[in-house]
Amino acid sequence: MQLSNRINNITMGCSDGWDVFLRARRMIAAGQDVIELTIGEHDIRTDPTILAAMNQSAVGGNTGYALVPGNQNLREAVAARIQSRTGTPTSWRNIMITPGGQSALFSAHMATLDEGDTALYCDPHYTTYPGVLRALGAKTVSIPTRSSDDFQPRTGPLNAAARGAKTLLINSPNNPTGVVYSRETMQNIAQTCKDHDLWLISDEVYDTQVWRGSHTSPRSLPDLAERTIVIGSMSKSHAMTGSRIGWLVAPEAVIQRTCDLATVVTYGVAGFVQDAALFALKQGEALETKVAAPFARRRKLALDVLKDTNAVRMIPASGAMYLMLDIRATGLSGDDFANALLDTEKIAVMPGESFGTCAAGHVRVAMTIDDARFEAALRRLAGFAQSQIDT
Amino acid sequence: MQLSNRINNITMGCSDGWDVFLRARRMIAAGQDVIELTIGEHDIRTDPTILAAMNQSAVGGNTGYALVPGNQNLREAVAARIQSRTGTPTSWRNIMITPGGQSALFSAHMATLDEGDTALYCDPHYTTYPGVLRALGAKTVSIPTRSSDDFQPRTGPLNAAARGAKTLLINSPNNPTGVVYSRETMQNIAQTCKDHDLWLISDEVYDTQVWRGSHTSPRSLPDLAERTIVIGSMSKSHAMTGSRIGWLVAPEAVIQRTCDLATVVTYGVAGFVQDAALFALKQGEALETKVAAPFARRRKLALDVLKDTNAVRMIPASGAMYLMLDIRATGLSGDDFANALLDTEKIAVMPGESFGTCAAGHVRVAMTIDDARFEAALRRLAGFAQSQIDT
Repeated sequence: MQLSNRINNITMGCSDGWDVFLRARRMIAAGQDVIELTIGEHDIRTDPTILAAMNQSAVGGNTGYALVPGNQNLREAVAARIQSRTGTPTSWRNIMITPGGQSALFSAHMATLDEGDTALYCDPHYTTYPGVLRALGAKTVSIPTRSSDDFQPRTGPLNAAARGAKTLLINSPNNPTGVVYSRETMQNIAQTCKDHDLWLISDEVYDTQVWRGSHTSPRSLPDLAERTIVIGSMSKSHAMTGSRIGWLVAPEAVIQRTCDLATVVTYGVAGFVQDAALFALKQGEALETKVAAPFARRRKLALDVLKDTNAVRMIPASGAMYLMLDIRATGLSGDDFANALLDTEKIAVMPGESFGTCAAGHVRVAMTIDDARFEAALRRLAGFAQSQIDT
Repeated sequence: MQLSNRINNITMGCSDGWDVFLRARRMIAAGQDVIELTIGEHDIRTDPTILAAMNQSAVGGNTGYALVPGNQNLREAVAARIQSRTGTPTSWRNIMITPGGQSALFSAHMATLDEGDTALYCDPHYTTYPGVLRALGAKTVSIPTRSSDDFQPRTGPLNAAARGAKTLLINSPNNPTGVVYSRETMQNIAQTCKDHDLWLISDEVYDTQVWRGSHTSPRSLPDLAERTIVIGSMSKSHAMTGSRIGWLVAPEAVIQRTCDLATVVTYGVAGFVQDAALFALKQGEALETKVAAPFARRRKLALDVLKDTNAVRMIPASGAMYLMLDIRATGLSGDDFANALLDTEKIAVMPGESFGTCAAGHVRVAMTIDDARFEAALRRLAGFAQSQIDT
């Protein structure tokens, strides 16, 4: 029996980049003491007060079908949050609640791409991006960025790729690079989208984790809201990764159609999870700052640990929960470095090659273990890198 | 800015069939006392013991990313349940956990249909079926069934539609008709699928609600498992509609690919919801029988109320939580009958026309209010029908 081309093409028969992660998990299962700096998951759990709100909602009887676009009160709360953070008028009609940011990402592309349309994304990229586009039968074109530019996309490659394309997917603060796009970068992206009549799909799930400079939501730039779809999520901002709740922000006409889509793809989000999210949002910035604080601390530790080494260059980390380390001075690829580090130091990091071709010779470090162990692991990583140069 | 054809085509610009439902909701919001017999939602809530299990899981720290295909223990529990109910060998490798049956339905078709492929479903149909297929760019062909055949599909129309098609979607016990396909019907369907090399997608979310005869899962028929994908859900069997948890049962090679798909469409299901589902399944048949019992009782009430009227003919209700009533003797369409019933009796039912063309002149009654009110509402409905003939 034959499966569809679209589902067979999602991985293109290739490795999905998680080989080092999976090998580390097998070593742990076999009893080895491996330090995991691989996945983007907080070392804290969802706040107990949020879980209590969820339980209260469920026990209170909120266990039936919720409205497919999301509860009115949550849509209003998300709209108010977006408006307050970006200064851009936003109503509940611009919001659809989704079962996680990934679902929002899929819906945004489903809404804007037909089979064979060209879809752009930046390299390096979050691991699921190409798969989303391939599942939709899009022609995928990646926009190369350079380590020496801190992986900020330049106008030249943007415009070269944009001709004839339908969508451009960006992510700032960025996973995997930890870079926050400058206002100038965002303005260039905006201009490209206008010049080439592109939809801009802006994944902003790390928008509460900014360590340097500030995050510009492209939806706030002049005349850009009408062509911009923003992906949001409670996962990173509120340590609610496992709750699977996020949202789309888009022009009202787009949201009307994505509601049709949600009706056939997922049929809404659990009402008690929505009530948990509403409670969490109502806690305001205090909770978000608390969730973000460990990554800010660990970034500072990393700056200190790595300041004197020539074996490792840290891409200036401005946001999100990752460090991107340039380890080309060791002469190793990211893959070889990550595998050797796992073998010799029992430390698991993600090869840059897991995120495209432009982060080859780099590794991504998730700042997701406690400060002391994180600092010690980074010292060992730097020592390992130095040993590769010395030998 | 242009949206994709696929998203614009989901509703085809048509009413989605929920006009009477929405009008009833507006009347309720305006303070009127309307009896709703419209949606497939239990009049009980999710059992408190299930919600306690969910809370225990969440508070216990199970709030991070779950494995995309589902937790191993839940996949094993679902596989054991399927094997025990159908006698067909089923392992956890045949199971993927999904955020609800709707998500499983979408994934099954995404896995088997490319753009332009022909997809079959039976008329009358559950409301979201055509939208799923149109969102995927499939060519949709409905197989007509007849009230006088109790809406069981016949071999002639099946084979006529099957030439050149890729998939056939069936639903037994059936929403909206309340019919359970006979073993002979299932065998005919199986033969058609083999003769025309079709994937059979079998929506069995009402499999615990069978009042007469027995449910044959087509996956249990000879040589059919390899071409069958079953949609399952906790929604109807365990009154967990709002929790959004279901599953796919399929050949292992299919599940491997649908896991790629789930990675890009939803990225898994909340772990605490999976633990709640696991707890619920472990309660065994006792809980399922308790959840199904009210519908069995109300079906008996309906048989008694409607036994002497000539104005309403009840399609023999064998399963699920609905009655399909043939009201053609009144001379009204289902739409007109439902609207007039809402105006004069303040009772909301679904027009048969909401579910395709073959249930025109019928209305669907959800058995989802307490027995006494249900019986009284049915008597008023029958009286209203009789009054249409008498005048």
